[in-house]
Amino acid sequence: MPSNPDWVKALKPSGPSGSSVLAAERAASPVNADSLSTLLFTAPILERNQKILDILQRDPVFDKSQNYFRGRIERIRAALARGKRLQQLTVAHGWSPDEYQVAYELLGEPTPYGLHAGMFTVTLREQGTPEQHKLFLQRAQRYEIIGCYAQTELGHGSNVRGLETTATWNASRKTFTVHSPSLTASKWWIGSLGKAANHAIVMANLIIDGTSYGPHPFVVQIRDLKTHETLENIHVGDIGPKFGFNTMDNGFLLLNQVEIPHENMLARFSRVDAETNKYIRPSNPSLVYGTLTWVRSNIVLRSGGVLARGVTIAVRYCAIRRQFRDFDAQGQADESPVLNYTMVQYRLFPLLAATFALHFAGQNMIRLYQANQAVMNGPKSPSDSRRNPGAEELHSHGDLLADLHALSCALKALTSTIAGDGLETCRRACGGHGYSTFSGIGSWYADYLPTLTWEGDNFMLTQQVSRYLLKAARRVTKPTENSMNVDNDTAKILKDFQDRQEVGAAFDVLGDDSHIVSAFAWRVAYLTFAALRRRDEEHTPWNDLLVDFWRLSTAFAQYAVIKSFHQALVDQSLTKSLDAETTAVLRHLFQLHALHTLSEESSEFVTSGTCTVRQIQLVRAKRMKLLAQIRPHAVRLVDAWKIPDWQLDSSLGRADGNVYEDMFYRASELNPLNDITFDPYPSSKTLFRKEKAAISSKL
Amino acid sequence: MPSNPDWVKALKPSGPSGSSVLAAERAASPVNADSLSTLLFTAPILERNQKILDILQRDPVFDKSQNYFRGRIERIRAALARGKRLQQLTVAHGWSPDEYQVAYELLGEPTPYGLHAGMFTVTLREQGTPEQHKLFLQRAQRYEIIGCYAQTELGHGSNVRGLETTATWNASRKTFTVHSPSLTASKWWIGSLGKAANHAIVMANLIIDGTSYGPHPFVVQIRDLKTHETLENIHVGDIGPKFGFNTMDNGFLLLNQVEIPHENMLARFSRVDAETNKYIRPSNPSLVYGTLTWVRSNIVLRSGGVLARGVTIAVRYCAIRRQFRDFDAQGQADESPVLNYTMVQYRLFPLLAATFALHFAGQNMIRLYQANQAVMNGPKSPSDSRRNPGAEELHSHGDLLADLHALSCALKALTSTIAGDGLETCRRACGGHGYSTFSGIGSWYADYLPTLTWEGDNFMLTQQVSRYLLKAARRVTKPTENSMNVDNDTAKILKDFQDRQEVGAAFDVLGDDSHIVSAFAWRVAYLTFAALRRRDEEHTPWNDLLVDFWRLSTAFAQYAVIKSFHQALVDQSLTKSLDAETTAVLRHLFQLHALHTLSEESSEFVTSGTCTVRQIQLVRAKRMKLLAQIRPHAVRLVDAWKIPDWQLDSSLGRADGNVYEDMFYRASELNPLNDITFDPYPSSKTLFRKEKAAISSKL
Repeated sequence: MPSNPDWVKALKPSGPSGSSVLAAERAASPVNADSLSTLLFTAPILERNQKILDILQRDPVFDKSQNYFRGRIERIRAALARGKRLQQLTVAHGWSPDEYQVAYELLGEPTPYGLHAGMFTVTLREQGTPEQHKLFLQRAQRYEIIGCYAQTELGHGSNVRGLETTATWNASRKTFTVHSPSLTASKWWIGSLGKAANHAIVMANLIIDGTSYGPHPFVVQIRDLKTHETLENIHVGDIGPKFGFNTMDNGFLLLNQVEIPHENMLARFSRVDAETNKYIRPSNPSLVYGTLTWVRSNIVLRSGGVLARGVTIAVRYCAIRRQFRDFDAQGQADESPVLNYTMVQYRLFPLLAATFALHFAGQNMIRLYQANQAVMNGPKSPSDSRRNPGAEELHSHGDLLADLHALSCALKALTSTIAGDGLETCRRACGGHGYSTFSGIGSWYADYLPTLTWEGDNFMLTQQVSRYLLKAARRVTKPTENSMNVDNDTAKILKDFQDRQEVGAAFDVLGDDSHIVSAFAWRVAYLTFAALRRRDEEHTPWNDLLVDFWRLSTAFAQYAVIKSFHQALVDQSLTKSLDAETTAVLRHLFQLHALHTLSEESSEFVTSGTCTVRQIQLVRAKRMKLLAQIRPHAVRLVDAWKIPDWQLDSSLGRADGNVYEDMFYRASELNPLNDITFDPYPSSKTLFRKEKAAISSKL
Repeated sequence: MPSNPDWVKALKPSGPSGSSVLAAERAASPVNADSLSTLLFTAPILERNQKILDILQRDPVFDKSQNYFRGRIERIRAALARGKRLQQLTVAHGWSPDEYQVAYELLGEPTPYGLHAGMFTVTLREQGTPEQHKLFLQRAQRYEIIGCYAQTELGHGSNVRGLETTATWNASRKTFTVHSPSLTASKWWIGSLGKAANHAIVMANLIIDGTSYGPHPFVVQIRDLKTHETLENIHVGDIGPKFGFNTMDNGFLLLNQVEIPHENMLARFSRVDAETNKYIRPSNPSLVYGTLTWVRSNIVLRSGGVLARGVTIAVRYCAIRRQFRDFDAQGQADESPVLNYTMVQYRLFPLLAATFALHFAGQNMIRLYQANQAVMNGPKSPSDSRRNPGAEELHSHGDLLADLHALSCALKALTSTIAGDGLETCRRACGGHGYSTFSGIGSWYADYLPTLTWEGDNFMLTQQVSRYLLKAARRVTKPTENSMNVDNDTAKILKDFQDRQEVGAAFDVLGDDSHIVSAFAWRVAYLTFAALRRRDEEHTPWNDLLVDFWRLSTAFAQYAVIKSFHQALVDQSLTKSLDAETTAVLRHLFQLHALHTLSEESSEFVTSGTCTVRQIQLVRAKRMKLLAQIRPHAVRLVDAWKIPDWQLDSSLGRADGNVYEDMFYRASELNPLNDITFDPYPSSKTLFRKEKAAISSKL
């Protein structure tokens, strides 16, 4: 469109400027956002992230100004270029995988190389032999081959056992024939497959001499390395647009009796012996188990930051946006900032508190994982002659892994649901402008949503958590068969509950923070034993317990989050690094998160005898008080997340508060729709002749 | 892309076909979907809708096959052509406004003429004088002028009093000068403004001789009728992409001292006398009030059908999709249909029940509105000489209008929230494929979301409902001042509660359906008096009560929905038109809706003394039983909504169950991304030269 006329350029927003409002908000709170961010991330990490941001921001390939306006094809085109550039920068600056990841997250959109850099190379590394590393991994790391990880099929999602694709061993030719026997066998949703990849790791049922050995990974070349044309007997393409994630070329793949060499089956754990034509069983299947736990732990770790993006935008904008006068002060001249309304605080501040709660839960999850890895890897190292574990110790390692696995499942399901749903709450709290793409929340929410489904659907996972808790409860109930680690926290809370079955509970949830943690533990134990009774004594079918299991897993995860947050608060490193005022605000956030959760789940706290009805009423009153206590610090608290404007890409969430100027700039100067003049509209006969012809010609 | 090779064309989905699965589902239930749809819509309406569908489906302008793939500019272009064609068909077939609306909803996307056909002509008709009808309305109806309704501004949403745009009366020239004094005064979000409109009704503060008289409507021409170029001193454009609604050209508008004639102020209610230069006050401001109630009532009426689109898709797909074996039957060969899992039933069936609950609530709302209109219009009709109401009767009309207004606010907030959130639950219940645009839920959800904000933000509205309930409670408490209609249902439930304050409640919610309705009424009364006590006795600030008010309004709306559903069930016309088996299933849906709601809100039912803790536990057990009872009828129940495939536009929700064939067809044959060949990838040096150059050239 013609650039803004001079009289438009001269216009300013009315009322106090957004930047003066945010400055006043920041001046009114003693919270030290810098020391809080250092506590969250550490100083070296913050410095490193800033360096990477500087590099990305000055590179024209990463210019974001047209992102929100592009159609799918243009977005894919840009994302391919950006993925390439990210790799070039990684080489040029010698970025570690962690640093590459930081750049990827700052960029804020998936690229068609995402699954190459992730699952393809990781699977090659973890499941390939040293020979296969040379053959595939090293070339992949040099981007000579581009790959993807093809597991799910059109008719088969979470259940790997249901996959239809086959890889049949040809004993005479020492090859595999990989084949899609039906339409539903088509690989589907495979990231990086639609346009970018020339290789795929195909998960297929291994068949030797008519016997199926279940799904195994096979490397299959699918496109020519020079021309990028699809190879013969292979059909591959992009699966079409999605609710989000549209810079990723999720693809489909069908294989028509494609023959691949023996060396293309990834053979670190299980393999086919080419001499004997026999299947060799995996040496240590639990290692794969460990990878899934790692992936889920990272989803938990990221969830706080994911949600913080939405909360940052909503809190800043609601501090600036003014709407209506306070009902009891109709005489006053000015409209109130929306953030002063308790209804807005009620929607946003529990989420503000959740960002910190999820962050501490994620940090704790990663710490537990790393501690476990250290123990697991310890005895394996041949140089470590001091360690030589007996059977008992190995068993307790198995227990530890089961604990970790269950915790990662429970927390993945809870934290990604809180983050996903929370982003939508933030978007709505921004009122009408939240619906504009320029709010920066909608597209972020849409891109995040698959996290609720992948790496274990959030409802499916809760069955695994409950199975673990039932098993733990059976051990506690029958201590003679007990070989369970007594240090195990789950065993402890179940045992505590059992010991007090004839005494009952009395938790001072409003008077003592540590009692809140105990109350959440009590509820977990109550629900666990109730489910155990229904399953073992009443012989209730598993299917009839799924809702109970989902509730139980949720309770377990909520307990874990609240416990981690409480531990962080009593941790000396926290009290040392933060001043008293910032610590006090953080404690209010803990209380808000815990009491809000308790209040939302209050009927379980009442029916389990954890709290009285009177306590629930008092918790609700306390929640309103906490909202008021947190209000003055809200802007500084989101500042502590230090999410750069470039990453937020939001008119509403800008750190400088220039909301309306930015909205207007994007609409009037960046919006390509305003460059197009449609036919005028003199009469109903001639209008849209062109448009109609254009549409008809496409049919 | 090259068309599918022959070996791909030969592939079929494995396992039982989707169509055989749906056929078996339909055969297994005695529910009569046809008689149920006739009950919902009536036979003439169903027949009419089918006729309109036939017309649209055979018109190439409405071909939907590329909808999901287009970028914003192409979507706007197509939507403009379709809006035009809709109008041509309306003329050709002599469609009534209702029939036009049916066509619009079948089309399933807003067009840039939506606000012209809606708010622009409605406002001209309702607020214009007969002379203005000639000047503007008749030309608008002939589409000679295209208009929009420009109320909200960049800095001002719900609060009309905060609008900054001014219209200053020039006594000497007998004209108005319309002006945007700041950037935040820019009209924003105005549908049909960005590209289509050449006129706007601008809401601006009327200023006469330095005195402001608040916002009034002014007709302003903004673009040339021949060239469609923007007129001088006007700046207009599209505001950019949104989370949904991207076929609508929501626009912005700035006016630089634009002078318009006296006749351009819509003058039916208030006006400026050009002789005396004086402001003439509106004769009947409550008529405007009535229009808002009408608009909200229609949102309530539509909400059931809106949600039914998502539920239809999810129920059909979950009946077809198989995933995992039942845990207790690991030996069985086949995977189970997802719809057999109680966790899926628990997520979907309360929403299936809600579609009917919302529909009956909407019908009841419209009936009340029409009854009220009949009463209101009665005495006004000069031909009706029998009626000559006294002051008392007029007062009771005012009461009736207040009741209606409050009910429409409460129901609008609740039903649009249930529909919006419910659609997202349906999308997630479809697992991974729910994320594909081809699911048909995501885009529908995104397009529906503004309904939660417009015509009164769903949180804001709850204040108005509570104000009404507090007022009603004050009247009941002080009967001497009472002039309230005792037939009024709200007064009745408040009075019943008060009469039994020393007796308490005893509701047989599991044994008697009518007790469920009474229990919901009791909770409303309890919460109303609790809020009244906090406000009037404890003098709690209004702002501190907003969360309580939201809870109260929600409880009031839930009561109204459950009461309407129950009334429909005991209505003789229902029992006459449905067979006993279908009626029994409908009764189970009522119970599921009511008891699910009760269970989700259980803590209020306990703290208000409406139910015992034991009852809550039994309600939860009953809920699980109801899920099992509804399971066999789920597919037939969604069939009863009779949503055509063309409207659903969903691979997953097709009535014939050919889910996987349709997914594959859209991805491999309709997806234009597969027509594009990106450069091959021989080495990191040459890759993306083209893409990079293309991006750099744009900067």
